Amino acid sequence: MPELRQNYFTKEWVIIATERAKRPEELVTHRTLKAPARYVETCPFCPGNENKTPPEVMRVPSGANGTWQVRVIANKFAALSPDIKPTRVIHRSRRSMGGFGIHDVIVESPNHAHVTCLMTDTHVAVLRAYKARYDALSLDRRIAHITIFKNHGTDAGASLEHPHSQLIAAPVISQQIRERFQQALSHYDEYGECMFCQMVQEELGEGKRLVIATDHFVALQQFASPTPFCMHIYPRRHMASFGDINPEEIGDLARVLRTILGKLYVGLQDPDFNYSIRTAPAEYAGVKYFHWYLSIIPRLTRVAGFELGSGMFINTVLPEAAAEFLRNVKPENAARAG
Amino acid sequence: MPELRQNYFTKEWVIIATERAKRPEELVTHRTLKAPARYVETCPFCPGNENKTPPEVMRVPSGANGTWQVRVIANKFAALSPDIKPTRVIHRSRRSMGGFGIHDVIVESPNHAHVTCLMTDTHVAVLRAYKARYDALSLDRRIAHITIFKNHGTDAGASLEHPHSQLIAAPVISQQIRERFQQALSHYDEYGECMFCQMVQEELGEGKRLVIATDHFVALQQFASPTPFCMHIYPRRHMASFGDINPEEIGDLARVLRTILGKLYVGLQDPDFNYSIRTAPAEYAGVKYFHWYLSIIPRLTRVAGFELGSGMFINTVLPEAAAEFLRNVKPENAARAG
Repeated sequence: MPELRQNYFTKEWVIIATERAKRPEELVTHRTLKAPARYVETCPFCPGNENKTPPEVMRVPSGANGTWQVRVIANKFAALSPDIKPTRVIHRSRRSMGGFGIHDVIVESPNHAHVTCLMTDTHVAVLRAYKARYDALSLDRRIAHITIFKNHGTDAGASLEHPHSQLIAAPVISQQIRERFQQALSHYDEYGECMFCQMVQEELGEGKRLVIATDHFVALQQFASPTPFCMHIYPRRHMASFGDINPEEIGDLARVLRTILGKLYVGLQDPDFNYSIRTAPAEYAGVKYFHWYLSIIPRLTRVAGFELGSGMFINTVLPEAAAEFLRNVKPENAARAG
Repeated sequence: MPELRQNYFTKEWVIIATERAKRPEELVTHRTLKAPARYVETCPFCPGNENKTPPEVMRVPSGANGTWQVRVIANKFAALSPDIKPTRVIHRSRRSMGGFGIHDVIVESPNHAHVTCLMTDTHVAVLRAYKARYDALSLDRRIAHITIFKNHGTDAGASLEHPHSQLIAAPVISQQIRERFQQALSHYDEYGECMFCQMVQEELGEGKRLVIATDHFVALQQFASPTPFCMHIYPRRHMASFGDINPEEIGDLARVLRTILGKLYVGLQDPDFNYSIRTAPAEYAGVKYFHWYLSIIPRLTRVAGFELGSGMFINTVLPEAAAEFLRNVKPENAARAG
């Protein structure tokens, strides 16, 4: 029997379509898991090719002579430019603004073949680079909102294979984020608590949609998950802004992220995916009603005309079944699979 | 120089990314345009296989003995079911409802190889079937909103090749539609006119983003178009609901839609696309502040982590360039190309 579920945070409805239901196993990619070469001569992100990229913004050195663990560089095909004034133009119904902004690439490893889930704890250096850039750019008053994200695989929009993530700092706050803040504020005003904190406690109590819970983070399938295996990782401690994460939490998040990505890699055979950090804009960093999280979206299905035309999603995998499937995947098998 | 543009209706920002800019020609699919077989024995939508589909809901007869132009049937893999009560369940932060609803398939032609843009005026029968079903289902008080849509090609989510569209009638109004209504109402309350009517007049005056204008319809690229070649077709007459379209307008819309789809077919070589009718829910059919339209989205690019993480889109084709490109495509060449 199909069911409609409403996302409490966005108020959006999702159809959980049991007539079209798929067991989680049916979405396995059936790809052969093989590591690409560790070094590709033509790859601009491989060591030795540092001069092929735009200027370096920062690097995490590796300790060894002149080498690095993580490099942050300007995006060669930047969507926004630091050299434009964010001046607004209003002409009748048309509103525009100069395309001011920052667009970084975070090269996650010198190893072209590196798979996030196969790393030991080195992903912590990537998260530290995210935070360093986030903190630095949050001080720029022209910047309204920062999005940190990763595209893995061509279905997820990745054009280069070498593991990397991106950061875009924009001079506006999107309407979608404005609306989510409005919903979160309404909840706070009515109940006097952060709705994300409340939901995490409910999910810990119920357990059915949990994937992992550690000292500092909880990874779960949402009750009204819009797409199969889409997951959120929430910090247990109330924080509106990713910029407030502390060093111990960064270490824990690196482990949780590696485990979750490892479960996807092994359980679904290296699906294409995106992840992004959903954080409060800098000017709202201290608010009691919003809670940052990391959203992971495996790209296993296509958005079609119904979703585009109605704003509603059809999810063919029961979130509780997806959570159970992922709880049972052992990412330690990743090393062998890779 | 990149530019940020804000959609006046949704308030959403779009990055028009000129550093990554593509000339419209660069998005041509380079597919070979070839018609599939006119009849496929195993296709459930081909004539003679009518018993392979769920019960017929309605048909437009062709005049000839026992044959049909258009058939409407229940979807074999329906997302929602007419046999479930739309009862709401509220438990802490979780809201759900029985998956009540109607899910039709509209088989657009008995000809498996039929291409919308190659038809003469027969698409009018498809639009009449849309309206007949829309009108009938609008009378059902359990139904809150009806979405009519088409998926063409695998990248657009189509699983069957035989030309067809779909209709889903749901017992809820999506939050996205609620928000668009709220924006439209705010504009009306401030200016005393429908913001869509106002924008269509502005665009007719300026001309740069127009693709076609006929007696009853205007097809244009939006100023803040989120994806390349995405188009809207607006009726000139103010109507909130698709159900208010009259027979003369249906004939004109069939011609406009055929021309637009023909321009895409010829100009971009049969790109995968979705279209959907964005209409007021039945209970708002008479409102002065909302205006229905048909939205066409060619699936030429992938949504990636930035879009998923921020709600903002990056469009690599200037809407004015896309409109000019499409104005210059002659869909009459479709017959030869097909």
